[in-house]
Amino acid sequence: MPLDHTARGVFPIAPTPFDSDGRIDFASIERLTAFYRDIGSDGMTVLGVLGEAPKLDGAEALDVARCFIRAAGALPVIVGVSAPGFAAMRSLAVASMEAGAAGVMIAPPNTLRTDDQIAAYYRGAADAIGPGIPWVIQDYPLNFSVVMSPGVIRRIVDDNPACVMLKHEDWPGLEKISALRAAEQAGGRPISILCGNGGLFLDFETERGASGAMTGYAFPDMLVDVVSLQAEGCRDAAHDLFDAHLPLLRYEQQPGVGLAVRKYVMARRGLIASDTQRNPRAGLSATARNEIEYLLARLSTRDMRAGC
Amino acid sequence: MPLDHTARGVFPIAPTPFDSDGRIDFASIERLTAFYRDIGSDGMTVLGVLGEAPKLDGAEALDVARCFIRAAGALPVIVGVSAPGFAAMRSLAVASMEAGAAGVMIAPPNTLRTDDQIAAYYRGAADAIGPGIPWVIQDYPLNFSVVMSPGVIRRIVDDNPACVMLKHEDWPGLEKISALRAAEQAGGRPISILCGNGGLFLDFETERGASGAMTGYAFPDMLVDVVSLQAEGCRDAAHDLFDAHLPLLRYEQQPGVGLAVRKYVMARRGLIASDTQRNPRAGLSATARNEIEYLLARLSTRDMRAGC
Amino acid sequence: MPLDHTARGVFPIAPTPFDSDGRIDFASIERLTAFYRDIGSDGMTVLGVLGEAPKLDGAEALDVARCFIRAAGALPVIVGVSAPGFAAMRSLAVASMEAGAAGVMIAPPNTLRTDDQIAAYYRGAADAIGPGIPWVIQDYPLNFSVVMSPGVIRRIVDDNPACVMLKHEDWPGLEKISALRAAEQAGGRPISILCGNGGLFLDFETERGASGAMTGYAFPDMLVDVVSLQAEGCRDAAHDLFDAHLPLLRYEQQPGVGLAVRKYVMARRGLIASDTQRNPRAGLSATARNEIEYLLARLSTRDMRAGC
Amino acid sequence: MPLDHTARGVFPIAPTPFDSDGRIDFASIERLTAFYRDIGSDGMTVLGVLGEAPKLDGAEALDVARCFIRAAGALPVIVGVSAPGFAAMRSLAVASMEAGAAGVMIAPPNTLRTDDQIAAYYRGAADAIGPGIPWVIQDYPLNFSVVMSPGVIRRIVDDNPACVMLKHEDWPGLEKISALRAAEQAGGRPISILCGNGGLFLDFETERGASGAMTGYAFPDMLVDVVSLQAEGCRDAAHDLFDAHLPLLRYEQQPGVGLAVRKYVMARRGLIASDTQRNPRAGLSATARNEIEYLLARLSTRDMRAGC
Repeated sequence: MPLDHTARGVFPIAPTPFDSDGRIDFASIERLTAFYRDIGSDGMTVLGVLGEAPKLDGAEALDVARCFIRAAGALPVIVGVSAPGFAAMRSLAVASMEAGAAGVMIAPPNTLRTDDQIAAYYRGAADAIGPGIPWVIQDYPLNFSVVMSPGVIRRIVDDNPACVMLKHEDWPGLEKISALRAAEQAGGRPISILCGNGGLFLDFETERGASGAMTGYAFPDMLVDVVSLQAEGCRDAAHDLFDAHLPLLRYEQQPGVGLAVRKYVMARRGLIASDTQRNPRAGLSATARNEIEYLLARLSTRDMRAGC
Repeated sequence: MPLDHTARGVFPIAPTPFDSDGRIDFASIERLTAFYRDIGSDGMTVLGVLGEAPKLDGAEALDVARCFIRAAGALPVIVGVSAPGFAAMRSLAVASMEAGAAGVMIAPPNTLRTDDQIAAYYRGAADAIGPGIPWVIQDYPLNFSVVMSPGVIRRIVDDNPACVMLKHEDWPGLEKISALRAAEQAGGRPISILCGNGGLFLDFETERGASGAMTGYAFPDMLVDVVSLQAEGCRDAAHDLFDAHLPLLRYEQQPGVGLAVRKYVMARRGLIASDTQRNPRAGLSATARNEIEYLLARLSTRDMRAGC
Repeated sequence: MPLDHTARGVFPIAPTPFDSDGRIDFASIERLTAFYRDIGSDGMTVLGVLGEAPKLDGAEALDVARCFIRAAGALPVIVGVSAPGFAAMRSLAVASMEAGAAGVMIAPPNTLRTDDQIAAYYRGAADAIGPGIPWVIQDYPLNFSVVMSPGVIRRIVDDNPACVMLKHEDWPGLEKISALRAAEQAGGRPISILCGNGGLFLDFETERGASGAMTGYAFPDMLVDVVSLQAEGCRDAAHDLFDAHLPLLRYEQQPGVGLAVRKYVMARRGLIASDTQRNPRAGLSATARNEIEYLLARLSTRDMRAGC
Repeated sequence: MPLDHTARGVFPIAPTPFDSDGRIDFASIERLTAFYRDIGSDGMTVLGVLGEAPKLDGAEALDVARCFIRAAGALPVIVGVSAPGFAAMRSLAVASMEAGAAGVMIAPPNTLRTDDQIAAYYRGAADAIGPGIPWVIQDYPLNFSVVMSPGVIRRIVDDNPACVMLKHEDWPGLEKISALRAAEQAGGRPISILCGNGGLFLDFETERGASGAMTGYAFPDMLVDVVSLQAEGCRDAAHDLFDAHLPLLRYEQQPGVGLAVRKYVMARRGLIASDTQRNPRAGLSATARNEIEYLLARLSTRDMRAGC
């Protein structure tokens, strides 16, 4: 099923598991994907920035995407195809769709500045991958240094019928969600908006009109529950659960070291076999590991999934 | 008393209060300063970035600094003197010290890139303000785009005897604190390290060796308590209090809109008369105000200072 | 006479002369201004980036502006009023106009990214200085990291009746001039376009529709002649003269060290008493001075103004 | 023959020729390479930024490298292997060396800021490609936003025995060459320094101690002659020839549009069949083409290679 603008819920951003020698760990891909399915995820995203996509060569990237897609079964998989140029982007996008992906995600190169440059880039990318592939705008200024106003996002959506989703990762971004939804009320073609930033504002993002979350926090089961509780109107319960996780979630959302925290916790939870990252990487000191353990211990008194 | 490396505790970053017409509100400066003293602050910092310093002209900046210093009494006041050039920096630094400031704070211009450029800039700044004025390095890469490794910070400290403090606002920054303290263990001249970033990692920063906090969260009384609890060895209690505030603290720490949140809460607490900012500013939508009220209501069940 | 969109010709960007102790050299301001008048300049611009404006404190900046304006007599003087905030910008703008300036120039802060941010900033600046002051957009992406498309420049012009001129310093920029003039052909309010970038493309900029030059090359007399020759239709002669200067002009246009080259040559020509810059500055090595002398010697065989 | 620090002379940066449909034009690769050999080049560099490397997918990049290497015969070929991650870098580096490349060139990712980050990146890259491959640092701040001081370049050289060359493309950069050569005089391991920036300062770079040029100006035959004349001590003749080309060279060095100028002139000279670029690209307007023709006509009166 190709991705469309009705997508809702939680699409975890999957890390790429490596064994302790840095080889792709396909068994962990299968285990992790099964977990995502079991907790009620609505889809998943692979080969994102925090999936260490740039650290794979072309053949590896496709192998990883194929393994996730096969394991995902009916769960829609979005493949990150951001690349320094359109030729490599097209190769990966076409091959991913042939392998069964539901759509692809495209981040802007960090040289873009003006609205015209951003709109032209996405037109060029859409031309490069071809008309039949649904795609997602990745709006992540903190990482890419490209700032997209609500107006330029609407322009991209209006220019490109195959653009069906925004991965919203601006910071601050609550007013942006409200502005984009208001533009749809005023007649704009609707899109799905899934939020990132490690979930740091998920408690309010859904209230602002986001369709759900696309992020990689090590407890995606919490994200699923918060989105469900909000959908059911249980606002206080959603915030209670979210707030219990916030100290750890915030710790994981640190730029640079965040992926090390995430993989550490996921390995500890048994979702992947090893927390190995490929180079370049930021590792965890013994003190940092102790801090994470302390946060987990505290969390476990409020959410038993954090117990060992 | 001039600032020195033994400074510890909490130095709130004071906002600059304006009345609803955008004029400096000197009565609120006095009220706010009295509050800082009452809650047990160890000092305060004025004319920082979130003090809207760039929105004051030269005469206004000095008036604001003088009013805070007078109201502070024995409490040491650090004055932000960052400027596009050394002449304006020197003018404000000298005048502030004459008015009774304890020291000044200097941020790097966002054009600096290499270690040599950064070290040269701080040498030039130190020459400009002259030898008798204690000063603080402001290390805030997210805002200034200047990244200082522990090595370059040590180089600045070693180059400049009057450099006595680091305002630590790197993100992530926990390992940086550990690295800087390790360098002191290895024989480096000690400095005070006060942490910023809205306090987002204060719970662990003190454990890593920070001397305290220098930030502007709307509940500086919480910051004072957390630092005290940690100093007394009450780790769990410190984290409990911190965690209760984290949902709001995180909300306030959003770039751009954060100051609007802070001033709104401070005005609501009665610490300043109005939450007016000068242009350019990001305002709060009605939805945002409702979100803050919701967060305050939730917080008030755990910390009664958040009740009306 | 207030500045308006009919401004044409050459407005040299004046350096700020200092004596060897770094004090403002008012006598050199008078001598330099007399030179600008004698060579047929159409105006002049003071307190620009390469006028070391950020290295002056507030009182000094105004003293420099006043001295230039007084010496300029009937020649229109544009004063750079870019500042970290609107309060300081307003103070300098109002005081400069009271002193007899023809208009002011405003550069964008380097944090701006989107078209909306840029347009909002200039609206805010226009509000701050007030409606009666003609002003100039400074479009210099290489220095300010702010990229303005022709569309956003037109938006600023349309939003702000007092905006009468563009200091064009984009690189590459020839097509931008053509696009802006085409937009005027299509009905847009006309503006004056004066080109910077050290004059590196002046030979073609005038052919593209620029109104002239606003830059600081050490031989502004050459700039005046090139613009005049182009205006008279002597294309080949204009290029011949320009090409003769290009080796030196290119040498002077190096970022960082360019101002040292410019002041060295201007001091050597007797236009200012000393080539002193305030800190931070890039100086000239003995080798660099020899290179400049070699370039001057070569130039003097084709333009005798370069002889001693 | 593997590349080593004794490399001297001119290594043209080869564009990647495409036919009018955007397919790689292998016949033009052979013709262009033959031309480079005929004019006395000392080597060549392929798959650089201006070789449109990012617009090729992995298989294409290797095909292009192999075709150039085969055509080059005994001429050493350096292959640009910069990539978003080390896995792709390693794949291309190893395959290129197996195909007969003399070495590889590595640009820094534009996220690097501190000296430590830069040094760590190059250590990681060296580890990734393995010890037997000679490599070149590409130092191009204007394009990559990474600023390397002479100190950090020396640190990279000292850390990595396989680092044998600097592609020097800093701007301004003359003092940097002098500083690097001085460091070798003081005992540092010598490296080859080949200069880029379109050749804009080649006239002085060789005088400062550069080993030659590595750039893509459409008249590499001029670059070869200038370097030869300088080597023979014919300073004035070298400058005369250089100055004759400077108006066109400067025109070609415009960021963004420069490659269009270069390919247009190379196609006009018959060195490649078409000036087609892949997307995203900046094209030439009719006015721009007329400007180039005018510059060529003027140049042809002083260098007959610009005629016909």
